[in-house]
Amino acid sequence: MGLTVLLVFGLILNAAMLCNGGVTSLFVRKVEPTKDMPLDSDVFRVPPGYNAPQQVHITQGDHDGKGVIVSWVTPSEPGSNTVLYWTANDKHKYHAEGHVRKYKFYNYTSGFIHHCTLRNLKIDTQYYYEVGIKHTMRQFSFRTPPKVGPDVPYTFGLIGDLGQSFDSNRTLAHYESNPNGQTVLYVGDLSYADNYPFHDNVRWDTWGRFTERSAAYQPWIWTAGNHEIDFVPEIGEKVPFKPYRNRYHTPYRASGSTSSLWYSIKRASAYIIVLSSYSAYGKYTPQYRWLEAELPKVDRKETPWLIVLMHSPWYNSYNYHYMEGETMRVMYEPWFVQYKVDVVFAGHVHAYERSERISNIAYNVVNGQCTPISDQSAPVYITIGDGGNLEGLATNMTEPQPKYSAYREASFGHAIFEIKNRTHAYYTWHRNQDGEAVAADSTWFYNRFWYPLEEPTSAMK
Amino acid sequence: MGLTVLLVFGLILNAAMLCNGGVTSLFVRKVEPTKDMPLDSDVFRVPPGYNAPQQVHITQGDHDGKGVIVSWVTPSEPGSNTVLYWTANDKHKYHAEGHVRKYKFYNYTSGFIHHCTLRNLKIDTQYYYEVGIKHTMRQFSFRTPPKVGPDVPYTFGLIGDLGQSFDSNRTLAHYESNPNGQTVLYVGDLSYADNYPFHDNVRWDTWGRFTERSAAYQPWIWTAGNHEIDFVPEIGEKVPFKPYRNRYHTPYRASGSTSSLWYSIKRASAYIIVLSSYSAYGKYTPQYRWLEAELPKVDRKETPWLIVLMHSPWYNSYNYHYMEGETMRVMYEPWFVQYKVDVVFAGHVHAYERSERISNIAYNVVNGQCTPISDQSAPVYITIGDGGNLEGLATNMTEPQPKYSAYREASFGHAIFEIKNRTHAYYTWHRNQDGEAVAADSTWFYNRFWYPLEEPTSAMK
Ligand SMILES: [Fe+2]
Ligand SMILES: [Fe+2]
Repeated sequence: MGLTVLLVFGLILNAAMLCNGGVTSLFVRKVEPTKDMPLDSDVFRVPPGYNAPQQVHITQGDHDGKGVIVSWVTPSEPGSNTVLYWTANDKHKYHAEGHVRKYKFYNYTSGFIHHCTLRNLKIDTQYYYEVGIKHTMRQFSFRTPPKVGPDVPYTFGLIGDLGQSFDSNRTLAHYESNPNGQTVLYVGDLSYADNYPFHDNVRWDTWGRFTERSAAYQPWIWTAGNHEIDFVPEIGEKVPFKPYRNRYHTPYRASGSTSSLWYSIKRASAYIIVLSSYSAYGKYTPQYRWLEAELPKVDRKETPWLIVLMHSPWYNSYNYHYMEGETMRVMYEPWFVQYKVDVVFAGHVHAYERSERISNIAYNVVNGQCTPISDQSAPVYITIGDGGNLEGLATNMTEPQPKYSAYREASFGHAIFEIKNRTHAYYTWHRNQDGEAVAADSTWFYNRFWYPLEEPTSAMK
Repeated sequence: MGLTVLLVFGLILNAAMLCNGGVTSLFVRKVEPTKDMPLDSDVFRVPPGYNAPQQVHITQGDHDGKGVIVSWVTPSEPGSNTVLYWTANDKHKYHAEGHVRKYKFYNYTSGFIHHCTLRNLKIDTQYYYEVGIKHTMRQFSFRTPPKVGPDVPYTFGLIGDLGQSFDSNRTLAHYESNPNGQTVLYVGDLSYADNYPFHDNVRWDTWGRFTERSAAYQPWIWTAGNHEIDFVPEIGEKVPFKPYRNRYHTPYRASGSTSSLWYSIKRASAYIIVLSSYSAYGKYTPQYRWLEAELPKVDRKETPWLIVLMHSPWYNSYNYHYMEGETMRVMYEPWFVQYKVDVVFAGHVHAYERSERISNIAYNVVNGQCTPISDQSAPVYITIGDGGNLEGLATNMTEPQPKYSAYREASFGHAIFEIKNRTHAYYTWHRNQDGEAVAADSTWFYNRFWYPLEEPTSAMK
């Protein structure tokens, strides 16, 4: 009954005008050249021992969080495809068998890339796992998420466009210093190996070793960015996403997808949909048909929080990649409003930005209605492409700050999306220059299904 | 010198307002159910003799028209991959070796599909060719185009969304009755086999036999439509375009493309760019990168007429597929204006429409400028998806007729684009109900590079 009132109230708010009050942060980051850490950096170190597993990383391995895909690389020979795993209460270790592959990219040949899915794990449980053989066996651990349900608290970290520069290392360390992050939602552009001659895939390996210290212990949920395309027909590399698809698996089949580049997972109280900005998304295409069938499946009574990840932002007021997302926005935005997506996280622009709740779906070619308007059924759009890669910061912004932009700042950082229950989530953005406890931007999110009121955001004060 | 004056004049016209005067034809076609011709129709007849070649069709086989790809199917065994070919002046026959393939689609197995490229043919010459062996050898002929050059007259036919209904047969017969068509620009949606259970690929075979009577004698330039996607994950068919790509080859490598779905050819005085509405076209994708590199290569001094083919129209005022093309339009339209594309032919909507010269590229999200305006640097957009397939006519139009729409009519038909020289081309649309000499819509095209004046169109009178 109270809910009914709230829903009606939400509809009234729909028609509210945008307040003026977008914030362009006055924080001025010292501009310094960003550059990649050298190959002999400690963060890239190869684990000792012949053929020792490296680049260990995990991601969700099924649709509802009881599976984990464990991936690793052995450099010299295939070694073992087995993952041994156990809990503190287990008397013996379980084992799962994966498979191994390698690939060539121009004059590079990869190590032996292993992927192994652990299934039917106990919920909300600390697991330990081992990969490798004998004296080079390596041990890691992860915690499975609680059972999927509407009021399960859960905390996601948000990282994008990380790369492997000194800034990247600061971002990752900063995220790690936050004790709350349980799973990383990664919005694309991983290694930036394609900035090297012939897309030197050695930089895919170094990135895998660099991120292992987090990604081996908590799932990173992968989104493909443009730096994953690795399309270089000049040197015979004509298959887009080859290194990425060989190295980073996703549980796409579990959500009925036919490509690892778009898929969904449920985790705790969140339903997470990952889209591909660089695949076909026109009507009739596989991604379109999948998303069209997927959105009605989301049961907000089970997973109140509907989160979408993509690489190329739809709303971005920087002078970098401006309007690149339009081509996908005009296709899918009506659905995002119809299905009341709570928040869309994107990367690509190397800076931070948070939008108001806005939509731009009234346009019909002849009516002139093409300006974003306040819409309480619409998502908040967050650009979090500020991981710190070698390409540096996007500092040049469109002026004046458009009304749809609530907060923007050209600093490196990460964000935390902390779901409290079915109605509330607390969101904070942390710039690298601050201590871990400082939030440079923050806002409450009110769930669009359970509590669709207008949020009081810091920018709207 | 005269040219300079004309160019300046064209710039002035750029700013001209759209006249009001779009025509919605008053022609009322008798509405009758459209249905496919039955399998035992004469037009689908299998040529006599064991393993006789069938579904013979040709397309351009290189970038400048001195090559031809000959394709055919032998139903029972591979037979020969050889094409014998000669001219009236040749003392002996030449031969070229092709290759053969087959494919499976759910419970269907194709015949043996042969593709063979003839290269370095003499220009502007009648060729005869034979495929098959011994008593089931079949002979056909084609004429190579004149040498590429700016004032070479050439006449293209335009057909789209043909299918294999009784109406389809009328459209093809109507096109054949026009003695001028030298090459068909086919704007996608070929067989409509996907309207049959499990996309019964037998209907790909019947379509190949149906169209042979034209496509074996003059090149059909292929564009992929949504009915070529054949994506049916429910029955395990997860590779888009499988039947189409096996059956219909294009000379994509000759234009530096990495996919048969987008490519370009030069033919006489025309440069023809074929795009794929159902592949990725976002920034950084292979199609985007190809098109970005391709457009600057077009030398209007060599090929004055720049023609683009795609399946999903960007400008369409019918209530069918309305705005489906927006997602590609917002990506590429600025380039079409910058490079002064003369005309864009699309299909998809089962009706006929011709636009004014308009563009809609001023939009920047915040300026509200999103209405198509008159633009003499912009292409004319023509929807010619009225081939006559079993899905019937699109009769329901948006009202009032938008200003960008010059002429629209829900009838089946085809069109003829007759290039006279570097400055003039005469365009006519022919509805099936009329005799071949009747043009239901017609207009002169003035070349955008050589003679960028505003055309007097029938609709603007
Ligand atoms: Fe990016
Ligand atoms: Fe179509």
